[in-house]
Amino acid sequence: MFVQGLGTMADKSAVAADENWHLAKGWRFAGEACGMRGDQGRRDMALFVSDAPANAAGVFTTNLVHAAPVKVSRTAITEQGGKNFRGVVICSGNANACTGAQGMADAALMRDLAADAAGTPRGSFLVASTGVIGRKLPMDRVRSGIGAAGKALGPAAGHLAHAAEAIMTTDTRIKVSTRRIEHPRGAITLTGVAKGAAMIGPNMATMLACVFTDAPATPEQLRPALTSAVDRSFHCVSVEGHTSTNDTVFVLANGLAWPADAGQLDAPTLGQFNHALEEVCQDLARAIAEDAEGAGHLVVLRVKGTADEHAARAIAHRVAESALVKTAVHGADPNWGRIVSAAGYAGVKFREEDVCLEVDGIPLFRQGEPVDFDAKSVSAHMRNNRRLTFTLTVGEGPGHCTFYTCDMTEEYIRLNADYTT
Amino acid sequence: MFVQGLGTMADKSAVAADENWHLAKGWRFAGEACGMRGDQGRRDMALFVSDAPANAAGVFTTNLVHAAPVKVSRTAITEQGGKNFRGVVICSGNANACTGAQGMADAALMRDLAADAAGTPRGSFLVASTGVIGRKLPMDRVRSGIGAAGKALGPAAGHLAHAAEAIMTTDTRIKVSTRRIEHPRGAITLTGVAKGAAMIGPNMATMLACVFTDAPATPEQLRPALTSAVDRSFHCVSVEGHTSTNDTVFVLANGLAWPADAGQLDAPTLGQFNHALEEVCQDLARAIAEDAEGAGHLVVLRVKGTADEHAARAIAHRVAESALVKTAVHGADPNWGRIVSAAGYAGVKFREEDVCLEVDGIPLFRQGEPVDFDAKSVSAHMRNNRRLTFTLTVGEGPGHCTFYTCDMTEEYIRLNADYTT
Repeated sequence: MFVQGLGTMADKSAVAADENWHLAKGWRFAGEACGMRGDQGRRDMALFVSDAPANAAGVFTTNLVHAAPVKVSRTAITEQGGKNFRGVVICSGNANACTGAQGMADAALMRDLAADAAGTPRGSFLVASTGVIGRKLPMDRVRSGIGAAGKALGPAAGHLAHAAEAIMTTDTRIKVSTRRIEHPRGAITLTGVAKGAAMIGPNMATMLACVFTDAPATPEQLRPALTSAVDRSFHCVSVEGHTSTNDTVFVLANGLAWPADAGQLDAPTLGQFNHALEEVCQDLARAIAEDAEGAGHLVVLRVKGTADEHAARAIAHRVAESALVKTAVHGADPNWGRIVSAAGYAGVKFREEDVCLEVDGIPLFRQGEPVDFDAKSVSAHMRNNRRLTFTLTVGEGPGHCTFYTCDMTEEYIRLNADYTT
Repeated sequence: MFVQGLGTMADKSAVAADENWHLAKGWRFAGEACGMRGDQGRRDMALFVSDAPANAAGVFTTNLVHAAPVKVSRTAITEQGGKNFRGVVICSGNANACTGAQGMADAALMRDLAADAAGTPRGSFLVASTGVIGRKLPMDRVRSGIGAAGKALGPAAGHLAHAAEAIMTTDTRIKVSTRRIEHPRGAITLTGVAKGAAMIGPNMATMLACVFTDAPATPEQLRPALTSAVDRSFHCVSVEGHTSTNDTVFVLANGLAWPADAGQLDAPTLGQFNHALEEVCQDLARAIAEDAEGAGHLVVLRVKGTADEHAARAIAHRVAESALVKTAVHGADPNWGRIVSAAGYAGVKFREEDVCLEVDGIPLFRQGEPVDFDAKSVSAHMRNNRRLTFTLTVGEGPGHCTFYTCDMTEEYIRLNADYTT
């Protein structure tokens, strides 16, 4: 009954060319260029529009310093009880953060312009931005970009690819994922799009993601589903541990998968929906880690044996944020000591003598003692595999998690040290 | 009444040559080479010996995974109530961490060998190690090194310089600081030595520091004095945020500054002693940040206006550990957004509109809005000054702190990615 759609598409031409992509019903997409980014002609304004009112939920940055669009969208979802949304507008190149009262007015106007362009009621849009912080939005460009995007809207994979491109900042690839649930009342589709946590120059490390679905899900169903999916996906990715001012994840459900009289999601279907949402978010999260700025390796951390999932994630988070671990991976160095000791200061209790560590099934550390492995061949394995999975066991508990990060390279330093001055 | 001695000495020949260095009375030092480190002839075994029984206190790594010498020394201080210590033995090149039961036996034997070499009772020494983890101590070399060091002991600045050199791993300079308090009953001197938090190859980021004094301080006086001094010095330094398996700070006081019948430290003198201990620790902590591996800039973070010191330190810690902030400094990029947003996820409440940021007195961000500064000239200032002070104000509270870190460079990545395989 549960049929997986295609996973993450790395290449926009592949997305555009693939006729088999099942996208969520009743959604149209556009991505146009309005000159917000320095490089002329790059798409930087995205519109996502539903043919019918959609329910919505959002997860936002926990940073105290958060951007105007975050404030505007959070308030809108709260005030409307998660109902009556018709779409999302996103610009890249300018984060509209640290911009004071003017920034708030600009974010609200951007929302209204998007609703006008889509021919939907004012107040029916959500808004997000990513890019340079501390600069006012160029509203003339925003206006012309939204106008152009409104005319370019369409339901095909090619339209989605344009929108996915328009939210990119330093991403090198678009990030899209879709999942389908077969159902007698009608197949339910979830289509997600994201931009990465990489950053360059004065840009912030903003992560944005939206999942558009035709599921007949209520706001009350969407909220816990999104919170749980984000916990198990975007909260399990660390590129450099900097929580941005603009991080935002939306889910919007327009209910068009089923006839209007078919009712809401029943419990088993809701379970499948939650699982599919989690998978879409995980696809996108993994794609973000893989496309991290200057990264040479995708690092998958599997932590097992803790009391609960929360504890496993705390350990994985510490390991993933260790510059020592990340540089060791870059150097193809099977340096178990850095990983084990990073786990040791995660604030989670375990016994040293229970700790085991493997990389892609090769034991490095077992029951608290180093394994006498062949360092040269393990290093060669690490050098030759772009994706490396470290499995860290710290006890016998049922808690576990999978976490994604990347290595830290000279290229990362160069990209992030380089300013426009 | 309070006379500062010389600050941190960067150069061992300068320390050895300077006749004016007042070192703590009744202490002898030695640093010899026993071949523990790959590079032949480098000093790697240090002895610090008191002519009389000393009281002691220690602060140790909070990492759950901690080395055998940490366990041995912590137990010794507890069991002896902080009394009857005659010295400290430290080796570099091997951390004796993750070495199981054999490691515990080796650490205990190393202590005993040191006591034998100094002609003091067994159990009268504290022990620390730094270097590669997961390898057994080469006890034949430890034995010969301790023997040689026992014969080389002496009270001069040159002897101290040798000992300071012997605890170095990738440090490029020895780190020594001394302070003197004039007093009618006799001048009190505190002499500190440290090694840095930098690391290379498979070595851990261990920070070690010892302060030797002739003050007649009790264990009950030393414990809170050391905890407070460490909080305001070593806990205010971050090179890469990795808490090592071996971090250790000792203070030992032999009481020889005053005649035996002069009694203990009175309250005003204790206040001066605490202040001097804090200053010695701050000198050493700053020297560690300055000598961090691959660092191009020392970054001083002053955080002000929080409710208390703890909150100020939490913000400084977050900013200091942000790879984005550290790479921006390396690139001479006055990127206030990275600093302000790192402060925003420190878990400390403040209002965005109260935030101000300056670098060396140049305003970058004021009352929650960007200042229109000349980015080119500020960048030139940052490029041309090895030491940069950022002052971040987040409100009107009395809480403040000074925190030290360094920039993150391509050199850092190269050094840490490079393994011996």
